[in-house]
Amino acid sequence: MHRVRLGIVGCGIAARELHFPALVQLTDKFEITAVTSRRRERAEDFASMVKDALGYEPAVFDSYEELLESGSVDAVDLTLPIELNVPFIFKAVEKGVHVICEKPISTDIENGKKVVELSTNTDKVIYIAENYRHDFRFNKIRAFIDENTIGRPIFVAWHLWIGMDKSNKYVQTEWRQRPKHIGGFLSDGGVHHIAALRVIFGDIAWVSGVTKRVSDYLGDDDTLSTVFEFNSGVVGNYTVSYAVSGKQYFEIVGTDGRIYLDEERITVRGQREETINIPNQNTFKNEFEDFYRVVKHGEPNILGHPVDALKDLSFFEAAIKSKDTRIEIEDLLRSTTPD
Amino acid sequence: MHRVRLGIVGCGIAARELHFPALVQLTDKFEITAVTSRRRERAEDFASMVKDALGYEPAVFDSYEELLESGSVDAVDLTLPIELNVPFIFKAVEKGVHVICEKPISTDIENGKKVVELSTNTDKVIYIAENYRHDFRFNKIRAFIDENTIGRPIFVAWHLWIGMDKSNKYVQTEWRQRPKHIGGFLSDGGVHHIAALRVIFGDIAWVSGVTKRVSDYLGDDDTLSTVFEFNSGVVGNYTVSYAVSGKQYFEIVGTDGRIYLDEERITVRGQREETINIPNQNTFKNEFEDFYRVVKHGEPNILGHPVDALKDLSFFEAAIKSKDTRIEIEDLLRSTTPD
Repeated sequence: MHRVRLGIVGCGIAARELHFPALVQLTDKFEITAVTSRRRERAEDFASMVKDALGYEPAVFDSYEELLESGSVDAVDLTLPIELNVPFIFKAVEKGVHVICEKPISTDIENGKKVVELSTNTDKVIYIAENYRHDFRFNKIRAFIDENTIGRPIFVAWHLWIGMDKSNKYVQTEWRQRPKHIGGFLSDGGVHHIAALRVIFGDIAWVSGVTKRVSDYLGDDDTLSTVFEFNSGVVGNYTVSYAVSGKQYFEIVGTDGRIYLDEERITVRGQREETINIPNQNTFKNEFEDFYRVVKHGEPNILGHPVDALKDLSFFEAAIKSKDTRIEIEDLLRSTTPD
Repeated sequence: MHRVRLGIVGCGIAARELHFPALVQLTDKFEITAVTSRRRERAEDFASMVKDALGYEPAVFDSYEELLESGSVDAVDLTLPIELNVPFIFKAVEKGVHVICEKPISTDIENGKKVVELSTNTDKVIYIAENYRHDFRFNKIRAFIDENTIGRPIFVAWHLWIGMDKSNKYVQTEWRQRPKHIGGFLSDGGVHHIAALRVIFGDIAWVSGVTKRVSDYLGDDDTLSTVFEFNSGVVGNYTVSYAVSGKQYFEIVGTDGRIYLDEERITVRGQREETINIPNQNTFKNEFEDFYRVVKHGEPNILGHPVDALKDLSFFEAAIKSKDTRIEIEDLLRSTTPD
């Protein structure tokens, strides 16, 4: 038996709409043997969905603990309110079960570090699912830069206007309306963007930022703007609003050219000019295939490592905390006295 | 005699190429009666240029002091290496002569404050020439926003790639190659951009930034990226490089639309859609006309006030000093201990 016996824990949007369609394409690698959810009827619905698509029905458990005790799973797929990630990861590892867990790793750095620490003390796989690390776009852009297509990169701007209205399904999620994780939508959605930027440019050294609340229905601050620097010296401006919608702007500036990304294509204007249409891709499928390689073939956990997930999250905690370090211009004008 | 008798002090690029063509159009308001420069032959060349264009020849003085003592000027036009602005402004005011002085006001906040203080203690006009405050583009954009065309403005991005090569005439200026003013090209050129943004959005509360040296011939750091906030709550990203050239990006995002600016036009996409071609304009002529109104008609010095010039400059000093207040992400990851 080469398949991973997988228990689905939490049956919300991510499980139903993101993970399940990927798992349907990976029947040679994963068998969904168990499912549980806070409300039993949602778990039963999910089990029916599995039966309809795959012809077999997973066992439905009343609690996460029963699922773990049952011996029916090699791994669990956690798609939960963020504040549950850490305790649920710990329980799985205690029971000798591998984990794939939706990003972000945790509510904040302090809690995320517990997972990183745990990952160094166990032979069980703790894989934080970040589909942007498996995304063609950012890996292709990194390749363009590695090929010196735009000379030495010096700057990246990414301004995103995601604009979620009141009826948006994510906005409707109860735990997102009263977020216990730092930054609300800013970190929940934002770790994707930082993961993408880190695919291209590596680790970030520092960030300074400002958050705003523009809407009155997104549970927390919904708009962020930052300046930051990668360890490599590349500088960035990342601005995002979940309150205001519109076309994103993504530009990388190098000493000898630029790379642009939009919804449909990557455009390179440098030592060569090239436009690449973005192919259809299921980044969640890529992610589960990678998780399978790590669990079954013992390959190193590079793209799902908790350390990287923590680094993505720490960008937001640093940006939010940076407001206490600002130089107010009026203060500077006052403190610099001519005599 | 209604004309202002004007002494030109310093005969570099700004005097010859920016101010003189404007003054040629304002012969009813200004008479260039005197000229001086560090090298006498440059002053004589300037005097000949005046004669060719206007039919009369100004007196050439060997020193600024002689020019001021001569009684031949009501005002001086200072176009000097930045570090000379403050002492030359003081000398003019001591001799009872009005001043129009090229931006930036001074080398740094500390020295600039001396000029602001002086301006409150004299009936002579001290006018810091900032032609961007007289520019159609930024005043028109402000009008669009005041008319609620894009709803409530929340963000502005301005990324500029000015890219000056070694042969550029400004780069060739000796004092710019060994700058004594804070920020080198960043503040010298940059006060224009901050003046423009302040025309649109008013005063800036704080800024956080990073500077870089990308070229090896621009005398100082040549690339800057920032995040900042206006007192109104609008947030901005301003990034500029004098080392890398290319198309600028200027976007204002509001709750109900956007405004874009490029080399040729202003584009509004909001509650109404409108494109305005940028008219030909001589912003230096506008500036001298305003200076004339202040000197001759006693109108308030709003667009040339030293306080505003100091605020423009302080943006750069604050951005440069902000690097000492950063949160390094590695430090944050270390300092946040789980137990």
